[in-house]
Amino acid sequence: MSNFIYTDWILRETQFNPDQLHSLETIFTIGNGYLGTRGSFEEGYIRALPATFIHGVYDDVPVVYTELANCPDWLPLVVIVNGDRFRLDQGEILQYERQLDVRQGILSRSLRWRSPTGKTIDIRFERFASLADEHVLGQRCHLTPLDFDGLIEIQASINGYPENQGFNHWEDLDQGKTNTGIWLHSRTRTSRIEVGMAAKMTISGTEASLQVNTAPGYPTLSATFFASSEQTVIVEKLVTVFTSREIDKPVLAAQEKLAHKSDYTTLLKANEQAWDEVWQKSDILIEGDSTAAFAVRYNLFQIIIAGSRNDQKVSIPAKTLSGFGYHGHIFWDTEIFILPFFIFTQPAIATNLVSYRYHTLNGSRRKASHYGFKGAMIAWESADTGDEVTPRWSLPNDYYGEDVRIWCRDREIHNSADIAYAVWNYWQATGDDEWMRDCGAEVILDTAIFWASRVEFNPQFERYEIRGVIGADEYHELVHNNTFTNRMVQWHLEKALIVDDWLCHNFPEQAAELEKKLQLTSEMRSHWQDIIAKLWILYDPSTGLIEQFEGFFQLEDINLADYEPRQKSIQAILGNEAVNKLQVIKQPDVLMLLYLMRQSADFPYNQKVLQANWDYYAPRTDITYGSSLGPAIHAILASDLGKTAEAYKLFMQAAMVDLEDRRGNTHEGIHGASAGGVWQAVVFGFAGIQLREHRPVANPHLPPGWTRLKFKLQWRGHWHEFDLRPQQINQEQSSREFLSFTQLPNSPSPLCPPPPSFPPKLDIRGVIFDLDGVLTDTAEYHYLAWQKLADEEGIPFNRQANEALRGVSRRASLMLIIGDRQYSEAQIQEMMERKNRYYVELIQNISSKDLLPGAIALLDELKQAGIKTAIGSGSKNARTVLEKLGIADKVDAILDGYSVQQPKPAPDLFLHAAKQLGIEPKQSVVMEDAAAGIEAALAGGMWAIGLGPVERVGAAHVVLPSLKGITWTDIQAKLNEAVRQIHNS
Amino acid sequence: MSNFIYTDWILRETQFNPDQLHSLETIFTIGNGYLGTRGSFEEGYIRALPATFIHGVYDDVPVVYTELANCPDWLPLVVIVNGDRFRLDQGEILQYERQLDVRQGILSRSLRWRSPTGKTIDIRFERFASLADEHVLGQRCHLTPLDFDGLIEIQASINGYPENQGFNHWEDLDQGKTNTGIWLHSRTRTSRIEVGMAAKMTISGTEASLQVNTAPGYPTLSATFFASSEQTVIVEKLVTVFTSREIDKPVLAAQEKLAHKSDYTTLLKANEQAWDEVWQKSDILIEGDSTAAFAVRYNLFQIIIAGSRNDQKVSIPAKTLSGFGYHGHIFWDTEIFILPFFIFTQPAIATNLVSYRYHTLNGSRRKASHYGFKGAMIAWESADTGDEVTPRWSLPNDYYGEDVRIWCRDREIHNSADIAYAVWNYWQATGDDEWMRDCGAEVILDTAIFWASRVEFNPQFERYEIRGVIGADEYHELVHNNTFTNRMVQWHLEKALIVDDWLCHNFPEQAAELEKKLQLTSEMRSHWQDIIAKLWILYDPSTGLIEQFEGFFQLEDINLADYEPRQKSIQAILGNEAVNKLQVIKQPDVLMLLYLMRQSADFPYNQKVLQANWDYYAPRTDITYGSSLGPAIHAILASDLGKTAEAYKLFMQAAMVDLEDRRGNTHEGIHGASAGGVWQAVVFGFAGIQLREHRPVANPHLPPGWTRLKFKLQWRGHWHEFDLRPQQINQEQSSREFLSFTQLPNSPSPLCPPPPSFPPKLDIRGVIFDLDGVLTDTAEYHYLAWQKLADEEGIPFNRQANEALRGVSRRASLMLIIGDRQYSEAQIQEMMERKNRYYVELIQNISSKDLLPGAIALLDELKQAGIKTAIGSGSKNARTVLEKLGIADKVDAILDGYSVQQPKPAPDLFLHAAKQLGIEPKQSVVMEDAAAGIEAALAGGMWAIGLGPVERVGAAHVVLPSLKGITWTDIQAKLNEAVRQIHNS
Repeated sequence: MSNFIYTDWILRETQFNPDQLHSLETIFTIGNGYLGTRGSFEEGYIRALPATFIHGVYDDVPVVYTELANCPDWLPLVVIVNGDRFRLDQGEILQYERQLDVRQGILSRSLRWRSPTGKTIDIRFERFASLADEHVLGQRCHLTPLDFDGLIEIQASINGYPENQGFNHWEDLDQGKTNTGIWLHSRTRTSRIEVGMAAKMTISGTEASLQVNTAPGYPTLSATFFASSEQTVIVEKLVTVFTSREIDKPVLAAQEKLAHKSDYTTLLKANEQAWDEVWQKSDILIEGDSTAAFAVRYNLFQIIIAGSRNDQKVSIPAKTLSGFGYHGHIFWDTEIFILPFFIFTQPAIATNLVSYRYHTLNGSRRKASHYGFKGAMIAWESADTGDEVTPRWSLPNDYYGEDVRIWCRDREIHNSADIAYAVWNYWQATGDDEWMRDCGAEVILDTAIFWASRVEFNPQFERYEIRGVIGADEYHELVHNNTFTNRMVQWHLEKALIVDDWLCHNFPEQAAELEKKLQLTSEMRSHWQDIIAKLWILYDPSTGLIEQFEGFFQLEDINLADYEPRQKSIQAILGNEAVNKLQVIKQPDVLMLLYLMRQSADFPYNQKVLQANWDYYAPRTDITYGSSLGPAIHAILASDLGKTAEAYKLFMQAAMVDLEDRRGNTHEGIHGASAGGVWQAVVFGFAGIQLREHRPVANPHLPPGWTRLKFKLQWRGHWHEFDLRPQQINQEQSSREFLSFTQLPNSPSPLCPPPPSFPPKLDIRGVIFDLDGVLTDTAEYHYLAWQKLADEEGIPFNRQANEALRGVSRRASLMLIIGDRQYSEAQIQEMMERKNRYYVELIQNISSKDLLPGAIALLDELKQAGIKTAIGSGSKNARTVLEKLGIADKVDAILDGYSVQQPKPAPDLFLHAAKQLGIEPKQSVVMEDAAAGIEAALAGGMWAIGLGPVERVGAAHVVLPSLKGITWTDIQAKLNEAVRQIHNS
Repeated sequence: MSNFIYTDWILRETQFNPDQLHSLETIFTIGNGYLGTRGSFEEGYIRALPATFIHGVYDDVPVVYTELANCPDWLPLVVIVNGDRFRLDQGEILQYERQLDVRQGILSRSLRWRSPTGKTIDIRFERFASLADEHVLGQRCHLTPLDFDGLIEIQASINGYPENQGFNHWEDLDQGKTNTGIWLHSRTRTSRIEVGMAAKMTISGTEASLQVNTAPGYPTLSATFFASSEQTVIVEKLVTVFTSREIDKPVLAAQEKLAHKSDYTTLLKANEQAWDEVWQKSDILIEGDSTAAFAVRYNLFQIIIAGSRNDQKVSIPAKTLSGFGYHGHIFWDTEIFILPFFIFTQPAIATNLVSYRYHTLNGSRRKASHYGFKGAMIAWESADTGDEVTPRWSLPNDYYGEDVRIWCRDREIHNSADIAYAVWNYWQATGDDEWMRDCGAEVILDTAIFWASRVEFNPQFERYEIRGVIGADEYHELVHNNTFTNRMVQWHLEKALIVDDWLCHNFPEQAAELEKKLQLTSEMRSHWQDIIAKLWILYDPSTGLIEQFEGFFQLEDINLADYEPRQKSIQAILGNEAVNKLQVIKQPDVLMLLYLMRQSADFPYNQKVLQANWDYYAPRTDITYGSSLGPAIHAILASDLGKTAEAYKLFMQAAMVDLEDRRGNTHEGIHGASAGGVWQAVVFGFAGIQLREHRPVANPHLPPGWTRLKFKLQWRGHWHEFDLRPQQINQEQSSREFLSFTQLPNSPSPLCPPPPSFPPKLDIRGVIFDLDGVLTDTAEYHYLAWQKLADEEGIPFNRQANEALRGVSRRASLMLIIGDRQYSEAQIQEMMERKNRYYVELIQNISSKDLLPGAIALLDELKQAGIKTAIGSGSKNARTVLEKLGIADKVDAILDGYSVQQPKPAPDLFLHAAKQLGIEPKQSVVMEDAAAGIEAALAGGMWAIGLGPVERVGAAHVVLPSLKGITWTDIQAKLNEAVRQIHNS
């Protein structure tokens, strides 16, 4: 928006813009995970669309079956200045500023207004929906007459006539007054959900007595008082709200809570503290790009306030709780686009979100049954029951317009696999076995049963096919063997088998019960295996190119550039039928599949396939006006492909979609999937986070200008903080190096469930040793060399500071030491060389006595046991050191600082070592003393043994204080123990 | 309803029945032709559906395009008794009575209520929508505490949040207070129609000061006062309402009117006077059947309040202004079922109704164009623009239910002919040539142009066909050559040619302009003629049986009795597809056609065809639960066929459809077409009114028990009153005789346009003479005989009283003489014989000197001119008299009291005479001195010459004082003059 100013946490609107009324109402939405309230004005405005949506409060409506009912409006606060009602379409607006503070969830507005009769007054409104107590809402209004003394009247109401674009879902049951204020009791007309709201008002700074009016459905507290020029009167309105979804007598609950909550300031404080806690975990700090910095926080704010904190039977609608678009229906958007943010920063909310699909399984079963299938078929659009609520028709209100059949409910079926994918990934990331046992497994298995009934066997080609679908790309409405769908189904069935095995192995009773309930037989399992083996995937191994669906490559091609500039989708320009016949797609489809398979590098994902398909599909994707689900995904893939500038442009397209109303439909509500995609684009794209067995690893490609990127992730019960900064570009290579990340030493890790997966056979063929800190103590020499350099440069440095350098590359170490100090690249090069010189000098004195206790014995034992050994050291002096130590001949391979380009925590060095030993990663054990080394081992899919304190190497499979007295037999036992723990937890 | 008591004018409900809340709200609807307000409670009730619909206030809505917007609610009047809000779902109802007085349009309710805290109070509410000033609404409330002294609070509001089954069409523009009260300014959200309402409240019987609250959209006047036991406080609330449809600043208009209207009692009085005027014209008095008596008035009341008195751009919706059913859309129901009542009793409203179709012609043209046709295709459902607003779909809100396509918009096309039929009949009845010239002709001609583009020529059979339609019967959704449709189209084109000729002949300039506008060429006229000649009509002349559509007789038959008892339609029981394939129909189709052709006895109507088709179709019609349009029509036809008991049963089915909620859908609104049908059933059915050239003629078949049936009709500018009473059944014959009707001597006849029709060639072949009063003065002997009898019986009688007996049968004359006096049938028989004895004695002295002047000369002249002559006398002594007069040989035929069963005014005698003369009725001239004889002549389609005063024989084509000096040439000249006048007016 043209009048927006973005600062760290605050969105400022500097001018009243009635033309953008509805999109601004969306943008200024506040909420607390229980409800969302659009940023409509307290005093109202003609054609405004005020709305408060409470999670789960659905009610019937024609055509789209059910929708989130706009709840009674708690906002009305009318100010009558000397007889003139304050309203922005009358009188004169002398000053105007609206602020949304996303750090604390506070919306405020400061105005100077001259009434039609010439009275000037300063008015400041403020509101919040308490994150500390989701049933509490607060409003405050400061009133300061500037040039008059006179009567002011305040009317504070609850409006029991809210509407969903005209439709009022509520029956007025009753209203009244209590000792402290007013209350309203309403009920949705069909679903019969009751809501109780209570409100009170206090006025300070003047003498005023309250009057109560209880007009049906519109209880109002009013007060008239005398206000003096330049004296401020403060009006505080507190509102409480409950529904019958959470309590039997919501109106009583609202009254009682209101009676006990009395102090606006205290409530505001509690809200701020609650927000502090949230942002401590979920914030992303970006430096060097204030627009992106705010925009990312804004997007996170909008999904945070949409995620229920206490309810497992609701989920996040496509337009969050901020608008009427899609009627509060829930799509795959939530699981695929929004859920990852919650999994990694607010896993308790993630649990609620995935549980929604479990609790609505019966609706999915009814859908499957309606269409003649078995198991559970997830609704394309889902609401309170999980039944299919996608409208059948788009009905134009033009008398003679054509009705357009919406086929998604019938044909866009890939979401049954997408939800399984999300469930699996939630489990992988959280290790929440209990939930998987009780809820997740049923979701994955019953949807798998659906697939088995949905695929068709084509005897002519001896293959399974899935015909008559819509893929992720919705421009093609009736296609066969959509690769996205087929491969997701295959993946889903693979995982279903694993989950069933896991359940049988670990929870045989529950497994038996569930298999009985779902009629899951061994024949079914065999059928799944057959489908996995024979499901047709349109993949050309010679080129890596994937055909989106049967015949896509035969469609007429189109050059999207020919249609620029444009303000609408290609479908809107050419019509539904035309785009059906063209090679133009609404959103990533093949590329979406590659994105989903990227994290696990599962088939068909690899770099070559990505490049080939990017080159083909990206230019054919209507990325600007097609689907808002596209840009963030394209941003990540572009980033992977080193197209950082393009990635940034795509990323901003997603990040600004609502703040700048890029698609012209922000009035319908926040683009929730895009907001979730923004988080993924930052974390998986620019930070390049890879989720390795025991910790996430960064592989960043920061956009130009970003000087810092900092965030936290929780992975399998542990918090990981990433604080990434760019280095100047090395002249020889365009890839960048980073100062790396540190693991939070005091991060809470109350529970560390081992990674769940089907028990592998432990088959160790080789051990790769880090050098420094494992076999010898060269770490001490490094420290001494850095200390000497630091002293010469006058930079404070000591042993404690040195701890942070463990396992960190030379350049990165230097950067950590110099911190904010400015050095030229030449100076940096010189310092690196100087430090190395000191170090090389120091290690000239090394001998076999410098071997750490237990090292030589272990090396000898391994040799006897036929276990291969290698050295995997980041040091360029490794070979020298090994020779001085006298063990260069005892190992089968030596990899050092010259061996690979990417230093630890990238797994390259260890992978290279395993390759040289001729063994698989999973046959390798890495011995490491540094967190980055453990990272690298896990990232490489190897077994990791950490030497040193748990705080440092706790991510490893086995942690030992040192090698002293450790035998190969000990190590094998520890590893086997670790495996058992993993699979029994 | 079980708690209803019906008295002459008043419906009384004696018990509160919350289970029937919504149907009772419909039943107790009041209105004034400008708006209708459902009978919802002033204090509200949970799930109530209060509604005020104002004509023409349509607004967009999904699926059904547009609907009458429920307007801001003027009813809220909340009474708070000692802190307890009066409401029927709390406390105790000790007494309850609700009354609707249809004579004055006043709804009232008397209650004795004990509050939850034990205070007992009498409350009486009253309301009316002024018929004297359509912008004025009044409410009054009497409050009498019975067992306490205490505080009572009154809140009188305008509710700006009305809803159409949840949908609120209104934007709140503003509200506020004036010196005298409150006001509200709202606007429909899409159509942008503004409504302004203002209200004030006065309280008498106690001290009270008013307070005003102007909560957004809910302005409220409130007052708290102290009430003493057994003292009555009266609250009066006056409301004014305007919309931007009739005035620029409706809210100002409402305020101004409110300021000037101050006295509830005066306004109520004016309303009563306005209603008096309406009922003076429109009432139907029935004696002997109090249920039918009230029910008929109730039905008339409901259509009177739905007919706009000042607006030509609106019409009456299918559910009037009383409910949400059909969304205020307008169907053929209005023109075919409701319009006749207005044509014959409130022609000014009829003008408005037919004008609606003229003003919405452009919508009809858009519809035609959309479907690829020419001209104007009337929308099946129409609203403000005339565009087609029938929804395409019936969408179940069941997640997996089937959408049902509604085909009426595409296929039910007969209404384009039905509307032409209504326009023609309006013109015939009113003689409103000016309107026909300016509006009606364009409707008839442009819809005819549509037909010419819609019919298909079948070269194989050399005929026109109309394929792919739905007839009047909607159980068969895709049929070919529906006879109802085809014949109506043929009829329409016939009339279109006549109208075009008429216009060209009388208004050549306007005709040229219109033909140019419509591109109406002589080729088009030839095409019409070709279609008229060759349009296929499925009529079997050998049996008279008409096939409803091609192949109907081949469908599987069904015995409806097999499904009794049932509470729903056969379609609901068997499903749409099944009934499509069966010989079961929703409503009269062939019989509907016969009904429409009955008045003019046009092809294919005649008694034999009616009997044949009744026998076939009546048993196959789902008359109970099919369409509410059926029963009244069946009642009329059954009555025609002498099935009076069956007719009465069918009639009551129509008359009680809402009062007894016979179809279970009264909650959706009044069945307007049924209400209009009730009037037709009484007037055309039981009274047997036939519309003859110059006056309506009764041919009654009163239902058993009805002792009197009295009503008025306006026909071609004249009022005609009918006051019918049954005689006891003659033992020899089941048909009844009646005391006949009288024409109002002083009825206003400002304008008597001659009947419009295409000028016939005057081709007179014969003259039929009445005897008494025409050729001789036997009337004098009758008088003397009656006088003698009356004197003997001691009944007052004189020459003046004798005037009423002119042309009246012997029995009927006797009845008029004896009046209320009680005689046995034996006595009556004796008196008739006695009178005849005296008469026969008297006429023994008759001779040729008793011939009236000019008689013999005329008879001779006619003989010379080759004009046949006959005597048509009701007297059983006619032959004797003729012989005494010596002219028995001078005439070609003699018909007397023995010749036919039905006496004059039935045309039988004259028709019989013409037949004996071998000439057509239109070739016959009747010479008559009695009104009943003129009736009979006109009813027979003959030329009538009245002898005597205009007051008596003014209905004749030519009026002469007597035959004295009259020649055949004179008569021909007079007749030709009359013909010219008819066709030039």
